[in-house]
Amino acid sequence: MSKGKAISQQVIKRLPRYFSHLGYLMESDVSRVSSMELAGQMNLTASQIRQDLNHFGCFGQQGYGYNVRILREAIGKILGLDREYGLIIIGAGNLGQALANYTRFENMGFVVKAVFDISPEICGRRVGKCVVKHIDELEDYTASGKVDIAALTLKSKGAQDVVNRIVKAGITAVWNFASFELKVPEGVIVEDVHLLDSLMMLSYNLHSND
Amino acid sequence: MSKGKAISQQVIKRLPRYFSHLGYLMESDVSRVSSMELAGQMNLTASQIRQDLNHFGCFGQQGYGYNVRILREAIGKILGLDREYGLIIIGAGNLGQALANYTRFENMGFVVKAVFDISPEICGRRVGKCVVKHIDELEDYTASGKVDIAALTLKSKGAQDVVNRIVKAGITAVWNFASFELKVPEGVIVEDVHLLDSLMMLSYNLHSND
Repeated sequence: MSKGKAISQQVIKRLPRYFSHLGYLMESDVSRVSSMELAGQMNLTASQIRQDLNHFGCFGQQGYGYNVRILREAIGKILGLDREYGLIIIGAGNLGQALANYTRFENMGFVVKAVFDISPEICGRRVGKCVVKHIDELEDYTASGKVDIAALTLKSKGAQDVVNRIVKAGITAVWNFASFELKVPEGVIVEDVHLLDSLMMLSYNLHSND
Repeated sequence: MSKGKAISQQVIKRLPRYFSHLGYLMESDVSRVSSMELAGQMNLTASQIRQDLNHFGCFGQQGYGYNVRILREAIGKILGLDREYGLIIIGAGNLGQALANYTRFENMGFVVKAVFDISPEICGRRVGKCVVKHIDELEDYTASGKVDIAALTLKSKGAQDVVNRIVKAGITAVWNFASFELKVPEGVIVEDVHLLDSLMMLSYNLHSND
């Protein structure tokens, strides 16, 4: 199965959508689906779906369609979901707590290993399965345990300093919830989730429809 | 100031980034900034920034740059942030609770008016400033109060039914956290925040870098 470089980011970005949607079909006891049906359900075209999946060697059968479970497993494998990732959360406010408590991440292989905060009032409290550690324990912790991804749920001030420490500690994937333009060296991946940005797109659209 | 139709979605989508970044500069007591400086800070080019802002009549001055506060106010106005929006949250799990407790939304004019859930164990509990209502009270509530935006933090199953009810109740903006491809009629705006998708992009990149 070919993977990686030659495939456009646009195709890659649709894979999680396929994966989630196929999961929904499985929950709904749907065992096979055609590219036409998928297209209707996902607001894509059938030919786009066939092209996307052909990239990865996932072929449907004429007159049968795709086997939902097998297709989902194949896409999961491409997405690297056949192994476990150690996740740390930095910032134990409302959002950090919600992430730490969200059991679905763990079901998908993203295991919250530790939660850090700077506030003495929060450190020592239990959040999800973890007791919140002080951010000054970060380097000792990352030196001794396997951490793949750091989720940042900090305020913008201070976020860059923390990222510098994360990168120095050898973590190469940052899930960034801070409303801040992070600077990272080449080789470090950042996925931004800017909640306020999407809310502002709603207000923009509501406002400009007036 | 011109607004809307003629301006590309790509430009519009950068406005929240400018707005947040200028807020960060204000917090850091920076009162003026050049397009060159902004470019370095935001990983954009200076000419792109000048072009973007010219669309909206926000001109910097040669040798002075932009006044941070005035530019932020102007962008906020374009984004519709000079008024208040009523927000309801549907789904009072971890994520719904985090959103209800996130005071920054209210500071920006997004006021959480009510929180709904389906579970009898959660209904009646206090979440943020609200007491959780049963989802069956949705229609009565929306009939009597002003709701602009519905945030959906439900599991995928049942999300479409709830959206149908939201749309029927006249709400035209959905902030969707459910991992589900919502179907809405024309005129209803959906902003998706698929947390799991971004996590899967991280696992894909970690995995394919091996």
